Amino acid sequence: MNRKLKLEELNRINIEAFKSSIKSPIIVILNDIRSLQNIGSIFRTSDAFRIQEIWLQGITAQPPHREINKTALGATNSVSWKYFETEKEIIEAAQKLGVDLFSIEQTTKSIMLNKFSLDNDKTYGLVFGNEVNGVSDYIIGESKACIEIPQFGTKHSLNVSISVGIALWEMVRSRTLRTE
Amino acid sequence: MNRKLKLEELNRINIEAFKSSIKSPIIVILNDIRSLQNIGSIFRTSDAFRIQEIWLQGITAQPPHREINKTALGATNSVSWKYFETEKEIIEAAQKLGVDLFSIEQTTKSIMLNKFSLDNDKTYGLVFGNEVNGVSDYIIGESKACIEIPQFGTKHSLNVSISVGIALWEMVRSRTLRTE
Repeated sequence: MNRKLKLEELNRINIEAFKSSIKSPIIVILNDIRSLQNIGSIFRTSDAFRIQEIWLQGITAQPPHREINKTALGATNSVSWKYFETEKEIIEAAQKLGVDLFSIEQTTKSIMLNKFSLDNDKTYGLVFGNEVNGVSDYIIGESKACIEIPQFGTKHSLNVSISVGIALWEMVRSRTLRTE
Repeated sequence: MNRKLKLEELNRINIEAFKSSIKSPIIVILNDIRSLQNIGSIFRTSDAFRIQEIWLQGITAQPPHREINKTALGATNSVSWKYFETEKEIIEAAQKLGVDLFSIEQTTKSIMLNKFSLDNDKTYGLVFGNEVNGVSDYIIGESKACIEIPQFGTKHSLNVSISVGIALWEMVRSRTLRTE
């Protein structure tokens, strides 16, 4: 019989085990994200895909925050995060770690997500931009490349929390899961 | 120079063109989704991936609704949808169309999304369940199979709008985009 798994059958790890586990080498960088629900949702998704770290920048709010936790549901306690005030600090922190930045944005030279080849040993800094203005021109200029999620509808873009979900899934699937 | 595309450079189609375009043969079925933001977000994602239809069932609210449109941003005008009161009506409507149901759920026999082989000619009915209780046992019993999104974190599940985004991307990528 096919039945839903009980919570204890899901074999989820606890916060301590999460903290000490090997992470997916991805830094999710939030460039001026306005919506607290989006920030919380991105924490929850980053927990699910065991992401290395989230960098919050500019107007992106920091935990603990009641509105963030409405959608994060506690994932702010598992996923490691840092706050940076300026975009310049983000660029410098990435350079210091030797992490290339890839902005998720629709640009004149963006590479479609399904055609983006991943290097297995590399840490990726994925930048997601403001709900209205997208990733800043400055960060785009400092990015190794821009990655575009192909879209076929009437609206100009996906919600940023959905873009994070799709990009993280694609990266985790093609790196971690492909050889299993 | 790598710069953000302007709105008119995105070449998005208008609502009339959307309505008459060939869709991705997927029906997104929302089984008792409580959150109006989630419903709206699912419309927006379904627009982006040019999904055939959304079926709203049970407590899932119907457009037009101000709270749905806060996240749908007009996608309720492009994506075709139907409302069904009962789960039985959903099962019957799917049978009538010859559409197999696949529930996105973590079950004793679920197939991981990355291992799920897609038939190119088939229309898929993807069922997404309530934020707390998941897909109902009745619909799981009537599903051809359950599909699970692999997760590695501390939380038991992803937000339903994120699950929709990931599942639709995976299906569109592996069917529509793989031969491009």
